[in-house]
Amino acid sequence: MSLGFELLKEDPLSRARVGVMHTPHGQVPTPVFAPVGTQATVKAVSPRELCELGASLILANTYHLYLRPGPDIVADLGGLHGFMGWDGPIMTDSGGFQVFSLARLRAVDMTGVTFRSHLDGSEHLFTPERVIEIQEKLGADIILCLDECPEPLDYDYNVQALERTHNWAERCKQAHTRHNQALRPGPSTSSGHGSGQALFGIVQGGAFADLRRQSAEFITALDFPGYSIGGLSVGEPKELMHEMLEVTVPLLPEDKPRHLLGAGSPEDIFEGVARGMDIFDCVLPTRIARNGAVFTRTGRLNMRNARYADDPAPIEEGCGCYACRHFSRAYLRHLVMAKEILGLRLATLHNLHFMLSLMREIREAILAGTFSALRREFLAGYEIIPHEARQRNREARSGRQEE
Amino acid sequence: MSLGFELLKEDPLSRARVGVMHTPHGQVPTPVFAPVGTQATVKAVSPRELCELGASLILANTYHLYLRPGPDIVADLGGLHGFMGWDGPIMTDSGGFQVFSLARLRAVDMTGVTFRSHLDGSEHLFTPERVIEIQEKLGADIILCLDECPEPLDYDYNVQALERTHNWAERCKQAHTRHNQALRPGPSTSSGHGSGQALFGIVQGGAFADLRRQSAEFITALDFPGYSIGGLSVGEPKELMHEMLEVTVPLLPEDKPRHLLGAGSPEDIFEGVARGMDIFDCVLPTRIARNGAVFTRTGRLNMRNARYADDPAPIEEGCGCYACRHFSRAYLRHLVMAKEILGLRLATLHNLHFMLSLMREIREAILAGTFSALRREFLAGYEIIPHEARQRNREARSGRQEE
Repeated sequence: MSLGFELLKEDPLSRARVGVMHTPHGQVPTPVFAPVGTQATVKAVSPRELCELGASLILANTYHLYLRPGPDIVADLGGLHGFMGWDGPIMTDSGGFQVFSLARLRAVDMTGVTFRSHLDGSEHLFTPERVIEIQEKLGADIILCLDECPEPLDYDYNVQALERTHNWAERCKQAHTRHNQALRPGPSTSSGHGSGQALFGIVQGGAFADLRRQSAEFITALDFPGYSIGGLSVGEPKELMHEMLEVTVPLLPEDKPRHLLGAGSPEDIFEGVARGMDIFDCVLPTRIARNGAVFTRTGRLNMRNARYADDPAPIEEGCGCYACRHFSRAYLRHLVMAKEILGLRLATLHNLHFMLSLMREIREAILAGTFSALRREFLAGYEIIPHEARQRNREARSGRQEE
Repeated sequence: MSLGFELLKEDPLSRARVGVMHTPHGQVPTPVFAPVGTQATVKAVSPRELCELGASLILANTYHLYLRPGPDIVADLGGLHGFMGWDGPIMTDSGGFQVFSLARLRAVDMTGVTFRSHLDGSEHLFTPERVIEIQEKLGADIILCLDECPEPLDYDYNVQALERTHNWAERCKQAHTRHNQALRPGPSTSSGHGSGQALFGIVQGGAFADLRRQSAEFITALDFPGYSIGGLSVGEPKELMHEMLEVTVPLLPEDKPRHLLGAGSPEDIFEGVARGMDIFDCVLPTRIARNGAVFTRTGRLNMRNARYADDPAPIEEGCGCYACRHFSRAYLRHLVMAKEILGLRLATLHNLHFMLSLMREIREAILAGTFSALRREFLAGYEIIPHEARQRNREARSGRQEE
């Protein structure tokens, strides 16, 4: 077991497990859902609200913060913790996914990836060394290796990309100078500056079992304090994601935390936890909130629907979030239709509360030995949006992927 | 003295005064600044935040709420108080100003005003009777008569408009059935529904002393529990506004609250208080916040300015607002440049805190007999944006006047 991660309980009927990560900015109970703060703010909520919601880990984006305001400004203002006024644990991704999905032009070779900023078209080069340097300036508690995130179904591209991802992982590890240590236990410090950072390796390999195995073996041999699984939840059928987790997870060490990059719908959480994942991050709860969609135990509700125009009920009966304690669906619908900022805020608070509460419930169920029952019961009652509809949504959204 | 308004102290060197209004939803210390919640939400802030800021009165817009979501829906959900989750005092304006400044086409005669919705072009008629009916459904503590708000410098138009405004005031008073009573003291109730509403008369007359006098005499003869002064702060030079207040206020009863419609810059507050006004409402603090401008004791700062990019100081040293206690100018600038919702929120919180704190300071100064010194000192240090620049801003803004 590594210094910073304690495994507290394993589910007898699945790979689900409960643990706790110790970081320089506090403890993170796992499994954990990390709200995404792309630009050093979780969209629409304040650090105080995040704290009240019980968020224990957030994820910020290296690509966005590198472009604006720039890593030196963030470093001068005390790193991300000081800059954004969040004292809790933070992780940054390496920018790899954004460069391949959001930036405008690019060339990739073993050196790194050249891209044009989606903001002003300026050209930039991300190398493994540069990305570590940027993340050291940003100062998160957990940082990630640069990786290449190819189309999951293109075998030949995945073979080439994996070669680069593995080379970059070695160089990232080499380049990481800022206390290249395991997650460390102990009292949290108020400044992220100068404290240790844990560098996680990333397993890639698209939707191909042999490549996933190859990648898991290569990356774990480098002995990182934690592992992310990347290149999933990017549009492939859910069954493929589950299969890739089933292939990969048994090859990861038991005593290190496992992070599923970019997945975080309620159903993804259950399926990921059941397959042994510990950390989830996703823009879904905050992004759909800004489109007026809210989670309930029976599925998503679209608050724009006219049926809610005079509905005095809260979003969900029994929910303890600020929105549900104080406001009706009718009021929320009014705010959404009138494009009022408070509408985005209330929907975001509700969705984050939903995800964070669900995670607490999952942790308790694992500890109580009832996780499989909870999973069965939840998924039986929850209407999942079909793959085709998700694809359509994704296409409709392309071009405004900033979060 | 009317039942619901107590005068506590008058300044010996000006017309400034301190009082307290008693409404069915609590007390309002005056002079008071009322944040504007156009669409049943003060843009970007929650009721909890308004409460923490110490707001004691907010103003919502009848025109907007009539169009969306409609007065019946608001009434069914417990009136504005229940609908928007704000237990404190609320006032609604009559919609007159919005119809004349925001709606698209119109015809005005003694009957009322016909206009097209700025939302969907649908045609509507506001009569005095209809506007009272709508405001009774919205259920605010203080409601206003329908008035016509003409160009302040067109004498002939003002003569005609005043005739209608006076006729409408008589009819509004007649139509007001819902406890047409003075502001009443006593414990606040949790429901605005069924409780009393105080109907204020509105004095108009443009920038003309004789019309203002005529209007003040006519409207006060109708004996309302409070009086609003309309048609000022709509683009005329500040000196004219001051002159009109000096003409009008001495004709208003001492023992009734006086409301200056739509004025609320720091300098307007000082000048209005000095001339005997008690209630101010204005979108300025919230609107400029959404453009990245923040108040300080020395004037407005535009947070988009590159000079703040690495500025570790808060917006204003010593300010106790949430934004200043936790975040740097550099972070706020980053949020504003990145169009993040938290940027709008922090700037709005700061500006509302600034206005509400300034009002507390003004009340304390009047009680201590030091108001004139405070006014002199504040205005000497505060850089006022010149009339010409205000005019340019106003023109640049036309077409997006929703708040």
